[in-house]
Amino acid sequence: MSETGATAPMERPGGPRFSRRALLAGTSAAAAGLVTAGIIAKGSAFAAASDAIAFTGIHQAGIATPAQERLVFAAFDLTTASRSELEDLLRTWSAAAARLTEGQPLEGSASEWQPPADTGEATGLGSANLTLTVGFGRSMFDRRFGLASRLPAALVDLPEFPGDQLDPSRSGGDLCVQACADDAQVAFHAIHNLARLATGSAALRWMQVGFNRTSSTSSAQTTPRNLLGFKDGTDNLVAQDAASFDRFVWAGEESDQSWMRGGSYLVARRIRTHLEQWAATSLAAQQDVIGRFKASGAPLTGHREHDPVKLGAYEPHGGYVIPAGAHIRVAAPQNNGGQRILRRGYSFADGVDPTTGELDAGLFFICFQKDPRAQFIRIQSSLAYNDALREYVAHTASAAFACPPGVAEGGFWGETLFRTSRRT
Amino acid sequence: MSETGATAPMERPGGPRFSRRALLAGTSAAAAGLVTAGIIAKGSAFAAASDAIAFTGIHQAGIATPAQERLVFAAFDLTTASRSELEDLLRTWSAAAARLTEGQPLEGSASEWQPPADTGEATGLGSANLTLTVGFGRSMFDRRFGLASRLPAALVDLPEFPGDQLDPSRSGGDLCVQACADDAQVAFHAIHNLARLATGSAALRWMQVGFNRTSSTSSAQTTPRNLLGFKDGTDNLVAQDAASFDRFVWAGEESDQSWMRGGSYLVARRIRTHLEQWAATSLAAQQDVIGRFKASGAPLTGHREHDPVKLGAYEPHGGYVIPAGAHIRVAAPQNNGGQRILRRGYSFADGVDPTTGELDAGLFFICFQKDPRAQFIRIQSSLAYNDALREYVAHTASAAFACPPGVAEGGFWGETLFRTSRRT
Repeated sequence: MSETGATAPMERPGGPRFSRRALLAGTSAAAAGLVTAGIIAKGSAFAAASDAIAFTGIHQAGIATPAQERLVFAAFDLTTASRSELEDLLRTWSAAAARLTEGQPLEGSASEWQPPADTGEATGLGSANLTLTVGFGRSMFDRRFGLASRLPAALVDLPEFPGDQLDPSRSGGDLCVQACADDAQVAFHAIHNLARLATGSAALRWMQVGFNRTSSTSSAQTTPRNLLGFKDGTDNLVAQDAASFDRFVWAGEESDQSWMRGGSYLVARRIRTHLEQWAATSLAAQQDVIGRFKASGAPLTGHREHDPVKLGAYEPHGGYVIPAGAHIRVAAPQNNGGQRILRRGYSFADGVDPTTGELDAGLFFICFQKDPRAQFIRIQSSLAYNDALREYVAHTASAAFACPPGVAEGGFWGETLFRTSRRT
Repeated sequence: MSETGATAPMERPGGPRFSRRALLAGTSAAAAGLVTAGIIAKGSAFAAASDAIAFTGIHQAGIATPAQERLVFAAFDLTTASRSELEDLLRTWSAAAARLTEGQPLEGSASEWQPPADTGEATGLGSANLTLTVGFGRSMFDRRFGLASRLPAALVDLPEFPGDQLDPSRSGGDLCVQACADDAQVAFHAIHNLARLATGSAALRWMQVGFNRTSSTSSAQTTPRNLLGFKDGTDNLVAQDAASFDRFVWAGEESDQSWMRGGSYLVARRIRTHLEQWAATSLAAQQDVIGRFKASGAPLTGHREHDPVKLGAYEPHGGYVIPAGAHIRVAAPQNNGGQRILRRGYSFADGVDPTTGELDAGLFFICFQKDPRAQFIRIQSSLAYNDALREYVAHTASAAFACPPGVAEGGFWGETLFRTSRRT
């Protein structure tokens, strides 16, 4: 073999010993004799991931998991009306998710004459802390699958809030998968492959990509900033506080549907921010809208980020220090029946709105909770009427999903739903 | 002060000694007396960036710079018809870019009663290897600014290629800024702030976000994979090869416009990939389309990624080993007059195409070259007719820009254009 691009006949390295071209036109029997020729090496070509987050457990990963840097969120519509096909899809997805979250490619392609089992773009990237979290939309409990009696009371349609500007083509869905990872391509690869495995059973309805904020400091506890430039999440629930997770996040004994125990309810809202209007607002007014200092993140009643939020404090000459409409006041637990939610949102920047020339950017808000009626809906009802920030944002998409409990070893997503359902 | 949210009057920490509420209704003289009250600390609050890439130099950064992980690419339309305002914009942008690429916030806000000079979302994130690269579209050389005589001959309108499905609202533009960084929020922040500074002179026309691929290995030389799952860029130009950059990338003495010497021409193409169709294609056929093995990236005439691409090699029983329509054959320099380009593209995943339910994802292709007529247009003309990959992709947006040479210390983007122009 010449190294100079010569025209001498050659055997294709790594390929069969006779012409591939002949083979391509040949019999399947000939192909069958070469089932291992040229296919992507399995296992050994992919480094074992040291950064893998366990897929199985009491709760699904991707909820209490510290937020990763990248999000690909996908909603699906079921195209099958067969309950067994739905269950098969969830089994197939679960087996795939177990591999993907380990940074392993999907398996199953027998030869180079078949499409690769894995689309391949994440090869060599490891697990990148990938988590995959599934949720069931209210529409999945309609008459198609015989699951109506299993609809959790908490999985209500969200009401229309004042100011909502929802795009139905980016809202709702029978199923969702939240893919979070520290690498955008790893998160995309997971959704890409789950969508492919769903062919014939479910089709992508919408997808949202998001990014979180890394910090240049070494502390994992640094609160990130949102696109408003403010620290966001200072008073969020933290996974170390298991009692609060039991109280506010995980569905428990109070659930009317036993299959949801250990699960959680996900509400997603695409909140577009009018960044141009915000940027034209004075620093003082921005801080009054949020109720915090922009630089430090401290409440207006404090000096440091985690100083107490004193909602009752007023200024010597009148008025609350944290104004009546300040976001942190209106959203505060004390003004919402003591309720809290786990916020796990991502910023998005989807380009330019062609109708206005403004940025189509903002926060893809995701929250988890035990009961959206008492939590997200209650808090958002307050915000929609009273939050000073409402003048700067528009909710452009909305969805709610019941995320079942975690997958047992050898089990599958939603197993409790199907098992319970069969018994009844 | 109580720590329990008590209602006792208090002074707002860090604020003025008298009621801010009174001040808000007060005189500007009162406000002027407090110009430093409460504003974001400058400089000291932001760590000096150790990962900063120099903004000034003979060439603009972001071309020979090793590709960072994140892209935000923005095109602008000029809304002014004043040449001095255009020059002012470029001066303002350059001063801002010098700070942004150092990880420093923009300055200029005198008090909390004004909008912050910097939108703030990148505070604390450092420079993240941010580069900002500006380009001028052909339309900037129309009659508005008296620059028609300075139009480089190489800055042609791209021809319509077979199969183009261009969306005009995502194509073209008077100006572009390519922001690349290793943090999505840092890249977005830069475009966000440049867009804001352009208010009154230029408006965003379109914006594209993209991601590159990190590698789990420690080698910076690992070739990333595109969304087709193939290694992409194996035979790309590398910055260490200065001679090739002089030959193929940097505009030189051959340029009809002396102001472009040291600059380069950027062509951007949004190449949507029909991933569903690709995923249904056998591994053998995928490899024939590309001309490389998927797992290793080796050419079909080799075993290892960087083995020679032997275009003349044929199989014992007929046909080229690297098929006639293989992407690497059709794009090869030997089939395009010896021409090469610097590819610097990013993957994108923009959601679901509502008309088909398919992923709206692919490659935001960016290339740099000395003359698009001899380089991109020639190569793309070959590909549009002969590339086997053309069945799997659609070019949905297109733009070309003349990127001026680098900014001198104390200079500004495009200074050579305006200086040359004045002299004539």
